[in-house]
Amino acid sequence: MVFRAAFSFPGGILKALVDSARRKKSVLVAGLDPAPDRLPEEFGGMAEIEAVRSFCLGAMEAAAPFAAAVKIQSAYFERLGPEGVSVYAEVIRAAEELELPTIADVKRGDIGGTAEAYAEAHLRTFGATCATVNPYMGAEAVEPFLEEARSLGRGGGAFVLAATSNPSSAAFGESVSPPLHEAAARLIAELGERTEGGYTDAGAVVGATRPEAGAAVREILPEALFLVPGYGAQGGGASSVRPLFDGWDGGVLVNSSRGILYAYEKSGGGYRAAAAKAAKNARDELRSIGARL
Amino acid sequence: MVFRAAFSFPGGILKALVDSARRKKSVLVAGLDPAPDRLPEEFGGMAEIEAVRSFCLGAMEAAAPFAAAVKIQSAYFERLGPEGVSVYAEVIRAAEELELPTIADVKRGDIGGTAEAYAEAHLRTFGATCATVNPYMGAEAVEPFLEEARSLGRGGGAFVLAATSNPSSAAFGESVSPPLHEAAARLIAELGERTEGGYTDAGAVVGATRPEAGAAVREILPEALFLVPGYGAQGGGASSVRPLFDGWDGGVLVNSSRGILYAYEKSGGGYRAAAAKAAKNARDELRSIGARL
Repeated sequence: MVFRAAFSFPGGILKALVDSARRKKSVLVAGLDPAPDRLPEEFGGMAEIEAVRSFCLGAMEAAAPFAAAVKIQSAYFERLGPEGVSVYAEVIRAAEELELPTIADVKRGDIGGTAEAYAEAHLRTFGATCATVNPYMGAEAVEPFLEEARSLGRGGGAFVLAATSNPSSAAFGESVSPPLHEAAARLIAELGERTEGGYTDAGAVVGATRPEAGAAVREILPEALFLVPGYGAQGGGASSVRPLFDGWDGGVLVNSSRGILYAYEKSGGGYRAAAAKAAKNARDELRSIGARL
Repeated sequence: MVFRAAFSFPGGILKALVDSARRKKSVLVAGLDPAPDRLPEEFGGMAEIEAVRSFCLGAMEAAAPFAAAVKIQSAYFERLGPEGVSVYAEVIRAAEELELPTIADVKRGDIGGTAEAYAEAHLRTFGATCATVNPYMGAEAVEPFLEEARSLGRGGGAFVLAATSNPSSAAFGESVSPPLHEAAARLIAELGERTEGGYTDAGAVVGATRPEAGAAVREILPEALFLVPGYGAQGGGASSVRPLFDGWDGGVLVNSSRGILYAYEKSGGGYRAAAAKAAKNARDELRSIGARL
């Protein structure tokens, strides 16, 4: 079964994200992490799978006008079994209909034919524009994703984990020298190809909570696009994004998941209106520090 | 949707694998990596999904008498979309009916609620006995798998990537100091708990192709169970497994995927008979070097 892209992005790799960000004047990525214990009350009578489906589709549609892309966390769909994976596929298709590029947040990392199968799964079968990749197993884990994106020619690519936002990632990655985020950055530099339009086609995941690590990664990757988690609910403010900029106040796409999806818990209104408002605020806050692509 | 285990293994964590290996007198793990271009000709007229399903179920049944466990590579099922994930679930259930513990080779690595969702997905929803985990993001990526296995009480656990068998993994992991496999080994030592019956409940993935790295990991983890890929098709012979033994010629489970699944390509006979013969030979070869649990 192959879910084909409902529309395709012309041009270079990662260009889909850049074009969308410029069109929307937004560097915001809206993340979908539908945790089972945080579904809106209005879905109380539904089967969990239906609630997750409706919640994701509704929140995504509400946030879409303010977001450059949507990031879909596959774990929350896998936990619901094969039917959950069907919803994951449906969310990607729905994003395409909204002309929102998708980042499959799968953090896969394997080698050889297995890495090719993962790249095929998420970029071709499910049809996401980009995927996140784990570099623990080295170049062989990353290359198949870049190759699949290049062959699809839909302006997608891969974001490779470099300095992620959680504390235990820093503890593990900084127990070696050079720190793991620098080794990952060098790997990304080696594998990424420069494309017309500016950025290299291998991006980096760099958390907003680790500005020093982020600045070190930026030094190694002056022309890479960063996907930045850790903004909002995880504690990093807009100012913590600034050290990650490239030389032109650009080069970052900033993800907010819980800050948008669960905004309704604080606002008390409907989840759609809350998600739209939170996304608009995040977009504006990121604009106010000058972030642009 | 929850697929419950058809039978359960009593006792400590990872004990399911140990008990099975002792009962079968085999340290062999049969790996299922159904590559799309290597399906037996007899499935030529079938839809790909049906061919993958029949091939996996048939090969697993044939290899079962000689194997302590089966390792299922999720990438090859994900590439077939939600229906492929249904087959993945079905293969795990079928293994349980054969009283074969399962290792979900998913190499997931994420944090917090996302890591919990992955652990829930593969150990609870799909019902695998064990899963492989990527430690790039540190302790938070591993702990939820151990906790889920402990709470399920089915004798399962997690195998954390340490020194994997591919060349680019060595190049990346040895570009830092101490090398990444030593950092991973220390993380595993920190997180694993000793259980009755011997081994700690966090195992390590250590390739048969890197004996020096493997020996270094063994020094840090004298009491851990190793899952050893790279034997057979990837070039490591039985003798390359010996440096990974613990002090009692034990501590290793050795995986062979392509050597069993694609044995029919060389033998020319039916794939089932070829898989059975290859599994028996591998078991015997591993016995001949004294490997035992």
